[in-house]
Amino acid sequence: MTARNTVSTIVNPVGSMRVLSNREVSRLQDTSQKGLHRLFRQCALAILNCEQEGDDTEEIMEQFQDFDIRIVQEHRGLKLELINAPADAFVAGKLIRGVRENLFSVLRDILYVSSHITEDPRFTVESSTDITHLVFQILRHADAFITKQVPSIVVCWGGHSIARHEYEYTKKVGYQLGLRGMNICTGCGPGAMKGPMKGAYIGHAKQRISRGRFIGLTEPGIIAAESPNPIVNELVILPDIEKRLEAFVRLGHGITVFPGGPGTCEEILYILGILLNPANKDIPFPLVFTGPEAAKAYFEKIDEFIGNTLGEEAQSRYQIIIDDPLEVSRAMRSGLEQVTRFRRKHGDAYYFNWLLQIEQEFQAPFDPTHENMANLELNTQLPAHILAANLRRAMSGIVAGNIKEEGVTQIRAKGPYQLTGEPELMKQVDSLLQSFVEQHRMKLPGSHYEPCYEIKN
Amino acid sequence: MTARNTVSTIVNPVGSMRVLSNREVSRLQDTSQKGLHRLFRQCALAILNCEQEGDDTEEIMEQFQDFDIRIVQEHRGLKLELINAPADAFVAGKLIRGVRENLFSVLRDILYVSSHITEDPRFTVESSTDITHLVFQILRHADAFITKQVPSIVVCWGGHSIARHEYEYTKKVGYQLGLRGMNICTGCGPGAMKGPMKGAYIGHAKQRISRGRFIGLTEPGIIAAESPNPIVNELVILPDIEKRLEAFVRLGHGITVFPGGPGTCEEILYILGILLNPANKDIPFPLVFTGPEAAKAYFEKIDEFIGNTLGEEAQSRYQIIIDDPLEVSRAMRSGLEQVTRFRRKHGDAYYFNWLLQIEQEFQAPFDPTHENMANLELNTQLPAHILAANLRRAMSGIVAGNIKEEGVTQIRAKGPYQLTGEPELMKQVDSLLQSFVEQHRMKLPGSHYEPCYEIKN
Amino acid sequence: MTARNTVSTIVNPVGSMRVLSNREVSRLQDTSQKGLHRLFRQCALAILNCEQEGDDTEEIMEQFQDFDIRIVQEHRGLKLELINAPADAFVAGKLIRGVRENLFSVLRDILYVSSHITEDPRFTVESSTDITHLVFQILRHADAFITKQVPSIVVCWGGHSIARHEYEYTKKVGYQLGLRGMNICTGCGPGAMKGPMKGAYIGHAKQRISRGRFIGLTEPGIIAAESPNPIVNELVILPDIEKRLEAFVRLGHGITVFPGGPGTCEEILYILGILLNPANKDIPFPLVFTGPEAAKAYFEKIDEFIGNTLGEEAQSRYQIIIDDPLEVSRAMRSGLEQVTRFRRKHGDAYYFNWLLQIEQEFQAPFDPTHENMANLELNTQLPAHILAANLRRAMSGIVAGNIKEEGVTQIRAKGPYQLTGEPELMKQVDSLLQSFVEQHRMKLPGSHYEPCYEIKN
Amino acid sequence: MTARNTVSTIVNPVGSMRVLSNREVSRLQDTSQKGLHRLFRQCALAILNCEQEGDDTEEIMEQFQDFDIRIVQEHRGLKLELINAPADAFVAGKLIRGVRENLFSVLRDILYVSSHITEDPRFTVESSTDITHLVFQILRHADAFITKQVPSIVVCWGGHSIARHEYEYTKKVGYQLGLRGMNICTGCGPGAMKGPMKGAYIGHAKQRISRGRFIGLTEPGIIAAESPNPIVNELVILPDIEKRLEAFVRLGHGITVFPGGPGTCEEILYILGILLNPANKDIPFPLVFTGPEAAKAYFEKIDEFIGNTLGEEAQSRYQIIIDDPLEVSRAMRSGLEQVTRFRRKHGDAYYFNWLLQIEQEFQAPFDPTHENMANLELNTQLPAHILAANLRRAMSGIVAGNIKEEGVTQIRAKGPYQLTGEPELMKQVDSLLQSFVEQHRMKLPGSHYEPCYEIKN
Repeated sequence: MTARNTVSTIVNPVGSMRVLSNREVSRLQDTSQKGLHRLFRQCALAILNCEQEGDDTEEIMEQFQDFDIRIVQEHRGLKLELINAPADAFVAGKLIRGVRENLFSVLRDILYVSSHITEDPRFTVESSTDITHLVFQILRHADAFITKQVPSIVVCWGGHSIARHEYEYTKKVGYQLGLRGMNICTGCGPGAMKGPMKGAYIGHAKQRISRGRFIGLTEPGIIAAESPNPIVNELVILPDIEKRLEAFVRLGHGITVFPGGPGTCEEILYILGILLNPANKDIPFPLVFTGPEAAKAYFEKIDEFIGNTLGEEAQSRYQIIIDDPLEVSRAMRSGLEQVTRFRRKHGDAYYFNWLLQIEQEFQAPFDPTHENMANLELNTQLPAHILAANLRRAMSGIVAGNIKEEGVTQIRAKGPYQLTGEPELMKQVDSLLQSFVEQHRMKLPGSHYEPCYEIKN
Repeated sequence: MTARNTVSTIVNPVGSMRVLSNREVSRLQDTSQKGLHRLFRQCALAILNCEQEGDDTEEIMEQFQDFDIRIVQEHRGLKLELINAPADAFVAGKLIRGVRENLFSVLRDILYVSSHITEDPRFTVESSTDITHLVFQILRHADAFITKQVPSIVVCWGGHSIARHEYEYTKKVGYQLGLRGMNICTGCGPGAMKGPMKGAYIGHAKQRISRGRFIGLTEPGIIAAESPNPIVNELVILPDIEKRLEAFVRLGHGITVFPGGPGTCEEILYILGILLNPANKDIPFPLVFTGPEAAKAYFEKIDEFIGNTLGEEAQSRYQIIIDDPLEVSRAMRSGLEQVTRFRRKHGDAYYFNWLLQIEQEFQAPFDPTHENMANLELNTQLPAHILAANLRRAMSGIVAGNIKEEGVTQIRAKGPYQLTGEPELMKQVDSLLQSFVEQHRMKLPGSHYEPCYEIKN
Repeated sequence: MTARNTVSTIVNPVGSMRVLSNREVSRLQDTSQKGLHRLFRQCALAILNCEQEGDDTEEIMEQFQDFDIRIVQEHRGLKLELINAPADAFVAGKLIRGVRENLFSVLRDILYVSSHITEDPRFTVESSTDITHLVFQILRHADAFITKQVPSIVVCWGGHSIARHEYEYTKKVGYQLGLRGMNICTGCGPGAMKGPMKGAYIGHAKQRISRGRFIGLTEPGIIAAESPNPIVNELVILPDIEKRLEAFVRLGHGITVFPGGPGTCEEILYILGILLNPANKDIPFPLVFTGPEAAKAYFEKIDEFIGNTLGEEAQSRYQIIIDDPLEVSRAMRSGLEQVTRFRRKHGDAYYFNWLLQIEQEFQAPFDPTHENMANLELNTQLPAHILAANLRRAMSGIVAGNIKEEGVTQIRAKGPYQLTGEPELMKQVDSLLQSFVEQHRMKLPGSHYEPCYEIKN
Repeated sequence: MTARNTVSTIVNPVGSMRVLSNREVSRLQDTSQKGLHRLFRQCALAILNCEQEGDDTEEIMEQFQDFDIRIVQEHRGLKLELINAPADAFVAGKLIRGVRENLFSVLRDILYVSSHITEDPRFTVESSTDITHLVFQILRHADAFITKQVPSIVVCWGGHSIARHEYEYTKKVGYQLGLRGMNICTGCGPGAMKGPMKGAYIGHAKQRISRGRFIGLTEPGIIAAESPNPIVNELVILPDIEKRLEAFVRLGHGITVFPGGPGTCEEILYILGILLNPANKDIPFPLVFTGPEAAKAYFEKIDEFIGNTLGEEAQSRYQIIIDDPLEVSRAMRSGLEQVTRFRRKHGDAYYFNWLLQIEQEFQAPFDPTHENMANLELNTQLPAHILAANLRRAMSGIVAGNIKEEGVTQIRAKGPYQLTGEPELMKQVDSLLQSFVEQHRMKLPGSHYEPCYEIKN
């Protein structure tokens, strides 16, 4: 690990967050435990590190140990002083404008969330509507609601370290979506989160759409690993993964899933779990799984797994389209039109999916301890959407055990997670995970995969 | 009193306040004591009544007893349903756009203030910085800060029922200010609050300034009497008179005072009291008293009074310019340039006067009971700025006793207020008030004035 | 006559005319007979003299004998150097922006017209469609066509030196037109040409119309006497009075006529002559004569005259509305809607009235020599629209004899014009002109009027 | 050759060309020899065929024999009716907006050029300043001059059928140029004309440049072979190749040359010929030859040829940068800054390079007959810039003999062109051309190349 080039400079604000009160500045400068400085510095560094791809957060933090960020109040508003910032984020000595905007989005959201959650005694996490209201407030404060815009936001999910030909494919899909005027929303990292944006951007260019939306939804825990691409022109930092997932499904109008690993599988189980909720039965929600020819096996396996575990109804909620970007964009376009008609008919907002019911199972954070993993109830007697919730947790635990710092540490100390449940179901789970191993989707290609779980039955 | 023409319709939102959560809608619809519906309805009616001049709030409310306003949530955002609204606010069946904007500003501010004061247990009125921070937050939330704009906001104070030639004069001053690119901020009623805006608008037209700012600062207690002119394109509703006055001096960069009655005198004492605070000694703040030839006596009398009570230092903080709109605009322009230089030098914000120190005496509401009036300490041994604060309160009480509902009732029940204090000072007060009576500035011209106070010494 | 304050400075261009070729610069600098410098200087001076009202062109030219204007080519485009320009056009040393824009409009039109008429051997004045095509090209080049805009341009005609209460009335009408979203087009001088613009501007303000159109159509011969008000934000210089009148009726969608003198009467005869053309029988064209109560006699006399000479059909093409601005705006609004429906139905352009047939009688310049005046055929056996054309010429001659330099000189040399024709018709003409004399509309109020014509029969 | 899908529809205009006079419509509809319909139809088809790459104009024309285009005049302006247009230009039944814009640019330029050259008796081709003035007028009429913009237009030249890795390289260079805020101007076909635009577009995205300029300069003779990419957002059609080349060097501020064939070599000789003109000695003009590692030989050979024929001074006017996009963008950026300083110092326009002297040798069309080719004076005794002009013509002839319809026909009839000249020089020419053959740059890769020339000495 070598020292990296750095730049120290002062940057002007952009966007709507340009004025702070003295009180807010103090909070951001406060380096104590209750202050916001630590969080702000860490997110800012992730943003500034955007041109480097690589998911080792720790390493980044170490490389830029002497990085710091300070607020400068001035007659024309506030400025940010960057000290020893990654040089890659600068062009001819000036911070790339997209990076600059994202920097101020971080500032905006950190302050807002802290003022409305952490420090507001009225906020309680117990109620489901409280959480939804909070997600709503964060998005509104970030100006993410464009009320006159008809449904056009396509969420793109998929792996952040996919193969080159898969990446090229996501660009082609994005291009067709962009040509049809759709906007892109992703988790804002590389791979399947960047490709569709690049493609859609060129599609927009040809249609002269200069205000296309490239929405990135992230959270402090993941931002360093999946640093927002500067093409993202609306960045929102949600406080945790559950609120981020809720933001995806309430803000987005449809979802395209590209190939990925167990993380992508977790996202699929999340959205299916919600759509299987009987209360959401009649709500249209376009959902397309797609990839190039080479990804066919991946989706076939997932489809088989879903059929065998969650049943046909679950399978009826999505479409699989292999190697046909044009068809994906048409399916998505027609799905969005259905969404538009539905919302108009029910008087539901275009900009926020109020009607979708999301149960606490999907809102409450899941802590993947060995105990919690072992206690997961995995059996087909459960209502399908509850089973989906539990399978999602299992998948979430495996992601943690594979790559998240805390999970890896636990596995090292206590051995693999023990998953138990209905024998037939467990066989399905085993087979699915085994296929991920074989397709090299469990870890970065080239490395040997040592499973972090054991299936008991 | 006759029934008035009314219109019932649904209006689309304009401006930034277009999205409400279900929770916020409930609060606005709530007609119970803790709900916001009553307040919202009353302010909305004031806005809709803009084409009528007249300050009898009660009468208006009675004329439109069956007026109501409701929130309609829709797929493209919210709408407002107006029921039996004053027909004057409509042109060819459509609500005048400026009125529409102001309607949504009311909605925005009522919700914000209620959420951040009334319902937030963290807010306490005891601290001076808390109040300033609140004024800051309300203005920021209303997008009143344009950070890149150099100081250009001229506050215009003066009577709302001035004579025709005085009104014409305020238009001429406004025209010259507008030609020089200055923006206007007033209490947004008729008379001296409307004339400068009209004049400045034509000045802006000649300079092709299409985004001129016509800021109206009002409060629920006065909005019905001083209904915002639709030329006002930035309306902010502050919760009470003290926060409104603070907003004037922190947002505005200079003040022009036109002739008025004791209310205008109260405003003069307010700003002088702040400027006489030793902490504010070096802060430039352009302050010009001006009127046509016929208003000369008015300002001479006030100048004499100030000289005899608050002293020469107070006199040094303002300029009196009679019958010379061009000179007023030049003095104001050069004053604003001084403000700009000062703020740049001290790194103070252009958009909010953080440095100005405002003491609790000026922030705490004064309740003009007979007892409070009698207890006012009026003597020249006090520091000048404290004396100014007390004189302002006395003037405030007289305004209440003259025209405010509660004050008038008290006077009827208990007779005139009794003002006591240092004999020489009381003579000055008496003489000043007497001059207002003679100039017919105590009440609407034509009516006989029965004093609501007695000077003891 | 005293020397006036002047300013010398360099001004940057605004609007679309910002780039000249070296060749064009040479033409503008060319002070020889075939060069454009003389014309450019004279029009520029008229624009710069906008804040002075007064129609003595000669006097103005003499006051600013040493005024000059030069082109400066620069890396960012061209600039204009003004030498000894009238100081009134400057505020704080900077040229009023509206004046600046109008200055560059002059430049644009002078160059264009010279390149497309004077110097283009293909252009012949003989054909009616050639003239119409030229008017079209000048307006298009000046960006006067906003294709997506539905018919909304109201032409306001009337005297430039009307009485105060008449002026106030034109403002009120303008206000109501503006509130209803209509745009104003005038000859861009003072009086009835300025009042409606000022009023409409405030109406637009309340409706938040920031791109309202204030179109001024002028010509080099009149621009000095009727200097464009800086509120005019689209100034077009047509080459002569006939093309200017054609521009009015092809660009405007309706006409409001305020009181004036014989000039206004000439305009009335012009538009009636066109509308009486059988080819234009079915083309809707809203035409309203309006004024305050005191102007009632004026329009009654004109109405009587028209009834007695051109007949009932002519009377059926206009409406007279006295002292009711609201009603004027409603009549105009509904007239414009009729125009819109008609054009949509016939596929005619919104922005240019192609269908209206204008005969050569109305396009060819009339030179008011004694001989031409004496030869005018004035008798009711003529088709009504031809009679209207001849009556217009008579009126045009009288205007010239009253105030135009050349006309006045001729009258001095040869005595009054001799008008002959059908006895009954001549009695009508005499009576009409007599009423103008009695109403002091022949010359500026206060001065004695010596007729420049004699009616023979 | 199979029939292709077509669409018939009516499209609305975009951009500034939205209003035509009846006269202009007639000219465009006129299918006779002197009418414009044939030219308009052909260019329109080329624009509509944008999604197909392939340079066989004839084939395209044949595939869409029944394509037609008509003008529809309407109340809101004109529309275009497309009959049997290529379906690829449509998305969901609507014409891609970029294509639509380009379609109306064609309309605009065809009309303008015909009105100002073909039909204007004042225009003569004999004078050099006449041609320059015409190029200026066409560009101005197309709104290509943005006067306030500092020099930022980089012209990209190079082959339209380059190898994949060369194409990828042009994208990378474009990306770096875009990140630095530079705008791209090309001949608007595929290959080296499309890559830099795509790259720059993503660079602009990151810098939030929403009004980046992607200028395409083309001419009727080449437009079908190099159909404008819809990313091009400013399309200008010049009347012939010489005016197009002049437009490149007067509008552009610097040039980047990517690998190509003899056509690219022709462009290099054109710009060097101009820069070698002693009158242009001190005019800065950044010129960079660049390509990936594999293109090194190409540029080395060209550099050697230039050194041996035009000399060191010629070599001093360009820089060769191999496989380093970042360095290219830096060199270009610093070159543009030099241009900016120079123009500011000399008061020369930013938007049009007036100072550059272009002699008739470079403006007059060269007709590559066998006779003209044989008569070319090729010897090093000539002034370098004249020699460059002649070498350019030789290269131009070879391009024609290789691929242009007329040239190929002549070669077939009369055998190869005979080039004669100074023996040493001819050896250089031979060696250069030979290297093109070896690098497969003479024709599309894969095909055998039969030389269309013979070198005599």
